[in-house]
Amino acid sequence: VKPGFRGLGVDLFPLSFPAIQRYCSATCMQRTIKVAQIGLGPIGLECLKAVAALPWARVVGAVDIRPARAGVSLGALTGIKKLRPLTVVQDVTQLDPQPDLVFHTAVSSFKDAYLQLEPLARRGIHVVSSCEQMIFPKLREPALARKLNLACERSGSRVVATGVNPGFVMDLLPLCLTSITRSVREIHVQRIVDASTRREPLQRKIGSGLPPAQFRKLLRAGQAGHAGLRESLALLAHALGHMPTRIIESADAIVADRDLKTRYFRVQKGQTCGLHQRATAAMKGRFRLTLDLKMYLGAESPCDAIQIIGTPPIQVRIEGGIAGDEATVAALVNITPRLMRAGPGLRLITELPLA
Amino acid sequence: VKPGFRGLGVDLFPLSFPAIQRYCSATCMQRTIKVAQIGLGPIGLECLKAVAALPWARVVGAVDIRPARAGVSLGALTGIKKLRPLTVVQDVTQLDPQPDLVFHTAVSSFKDAYLQLEPLARRGIHVVSSCEQMIFPKLREPALARKLNLACERSGSRVVATGVNPGFVMDLLPLCLTSITRSVREIHVQRIVDASTRREPLQRKIGSGLPPAQFRKLLRAGQAGHAGLRESLALLAHALGHMPTRIIESADAIVADRDLKTRYFRVQKGQTCGLHQRATAAMKGRFRLTLDLKMYLGAESPCDAIQIIGTPPIQVRIEGGIAGDEATVAALVNITPRLMRAGPGLRLITELPLA
Repeated sequence: VKPGFRGLGVDLFPLSFPAIQRYCSATCMQRTIKVAQIGLGPIGLECLKAVAALPWARVVGAVDIRPARAGVSLGALTGIKKLRPLTVVQDVTQLDPQPDLVFHTAVSSFKDAYLQLEPLARRGIHVVSSCEQMIFPKLREPALARKLNLACERSGSRVVATGVNPGFVMDLLPLCLTSITRSVREIHVQRIVDASTRREPLQRKIGSGLPPAQFRKLLRAGQAGHAGLRESLALLAHALGHMPTRIIESADAIVADRDLKTRYFRVQKGQTCGLHQRATAAMKGRFRLTLDLKMYLGAESPCDAIQIIGTPPIQVRIEGGIAGDEATVAALVNITPRLMRAGPGLRLITELPLA
Repeated sequence: VKPGFRGLGVDLFPLSFPAIQRYCSATCMQRTIKVAQIGLGPIGLECLKAVAALPWARVVGAVDIRPARAGVSLGALTGIKKLRPLTVVQDVTQLDPQPDLVFHTAVSSFKDAYLQLEPLARRGIHVVSSCEQMIFPKLREPALARKLNLACERSGSRVVATGVNPGFVMDLLPLCLTSITRSVREIHVQRIVDASTRREPLQRKIGSGLPPAQFRKLLRAGQAGHAGLRESLALLAHALGHMPTRIIESADAIVADRDLKTRYFRVQKGQTCGLHQRATAAMKGRFRLTLDLKMYLGAESPCDAIQIIGTPPIQVRIEGGIAGDEATVAALVNITPRLMRAGPGLRLITELPLA
């Protein structure tokens, strides 16, 4: 059947203006809050710029531990005039006035994040973090997660971590899709990232330019690779009520078959140009879950694909994949009003309403 | 670059069993609840079957206003042995014992749903409904929405409507995607449904077999067409904090270019074989939102497609589209534990956490 309509012929009744205006409520923040940025890497800088443009946020400062950054004007770093009077400090306690909320884009390990964030939580400061392991903090550090949560509950602070991966493509989005599927038996997520479009730290962590043997050694030692894959898996399994008895994660170098050049790296044929990492879970019962991530320079058809085997089955494809760096900044900024309306505590993204 | 890895060579450290088991908590319902089904159309029947299989639900009865259904055994209707002692009643008050929660799949109009549900809400009974207009009830009936919410707050009842469309493809899923996008300027959702795979009432409401002029007349009179498109639009706009000044909805017949035959209808060339419906919103500022729905018999490439123009842009495609009937039942069942953990009131799906 070729549809034979010639434009839409029938106008259904339009809604009257008063009826529409009556239902609308402002969903933005109720008051302006004081915000500081912790960590001024590429994501942190973009986050700072985004926050400076928000109507409900007033930037009161930024923290970076690198000595070279100390005292540098935030105006110079961001190109934003109104931030000129502010300079980078090396410790949160030097911020004046104290922020109500910090954006934290400094570390991947929850253990490291805990040391930076627990003192803030104790003082009632809210935190939105990009710390990968904090997507599901009790996976590796249940005791620290409990302590941080307790500090939050005592002070009224709200802490959450979010991002794209972990934080969206491999956990929140599949979870969202399972809301309309019964008898979910398998979930498989595949993400292929063209790392040549990404920030320098990402190109570094996937081993760009290293001899494959050396990169594998780093992977084995936990000194390279993508953080948060097993946290995504654990968060998703947890949200679906499944109990993994074991999480198995493996990784390998992707080797360049020709010379490659990015803004930050030169990679010769035979050197590492990326990372293939995979996490699977062994579960009680028949439920299966696989997260598969390839990040390499020059990947030709980047995409995100989610397959859910259930009733009904669902296959979702995001052509080009979700652009990690921009989307991470968006995730950090967008979650803030939702976090502020949640109860105090160390929260999971899956606990917050979407709107 | 053709990735040169030969399987994943490096096993990262597996997580120890105790650490994993410690973080896992049961996410299912804490106790068994008494459930009744209101409305025994195709969706209602499937919902009843699904509920009967839930570990946390005990079916106590079903309601259908059609006299032919009264007194019929639920065992006979569903083929489920344990439901044999229960028979269909014509009114909720005849249910014994009183249910804790009802699944309501009886009407599309919120006005009609209000009359059926308000007495339940007053008695503290929770409701999960597929009523299309109830996806955003205050759009057309702000006064009734307020009254129902008040009844809920007084009795402790929780009421929510969900589904696939409205309820997911054109509202919740795009909203989920905007959580990782900044400066969203446009959202366009397109859904193409092959109606020949769907239930009889759906094939009827898209005008199957009617002369196009007659179907257009029914559309104009509001007696045919897809319910809930403008509710999806209003919910999405509302959740994003935008205020539509006007919602424009139009519709037209899709005319068969050859003879068609389904399980329920025979359609001749030149007769109506489907529906094309579209809703757009005029907003303050530059934000644009379009929902476009085609449901027709024999649609060749059914799919759901979401395009978000923002930073970053996102394009999502669900090949084959989400199978409406099965997914609607899943949506109804899956939302229940999340609803029960929310506060009392007439809730929107966007207010409930995903897990």
